[in-house]
Amino acid sequence: MWKAKIIVTYKPGILDPEAKTIQHALGSLGYGNIQDITAGRFFELSLDAGLSQAAAEAQTREICEKILSNPVIQKYSYELSETVL
Amino acid sequence: MWKAKIIVTYKPGILDPEAKTIQHALGSLGYGNIQDITAGRFFELSLDAGLSQAAAEAQTREICEKILSNPVIQKYSYELSETVL
Repeated sequence: MWKAKIIVTYKPGILDPEAKTIQHALGSLGYGNIQDITAGRFFELSLDAGLSQAAAEAQTREICEKILSNPVIQKYSYELSETVL
Repeated sequence: MWKAKIIVTYKPGILDPEAKTIQHALGSLGYGNIQDITAGRFFELSLDAGLSQAAAEAQTREICEKILSNPVIQKYSYELSETVL
């Protein structure tokens, strides 16, 4: 089985109000030394074992672009690994 | 500077409606071979360079437990690395 670990974050320059809110909350709780925060989404997909690595990668990219991210304002990265049950 | 990459997901057995919705959407778009989906949150924190590794880890864990996750229903994992600017 293929496992794809996907991280979706905002592109640089896109305002991320969630990260700003967390940073503000951390500051008021005494963690003022946190200099920067990125917030994003994490997904793990389990793909069919029958796929070749190239096909599994192509499908992962397609799903990231069509469903899991908004390519206008977000970027994604993924790691694909084969797991033996 | 320390960089902490944090992933927060639901504990096993906790219903994850977002993952179910995504799996359903993938099925209707022709990706019926996706067998399982986990959805979660991703955070990257930049911590002060002055901290020792133990202090940076302790602070990361504290922030995860107090702010970034709900320990009743969620679990977190993190990777800490030192970056030289």
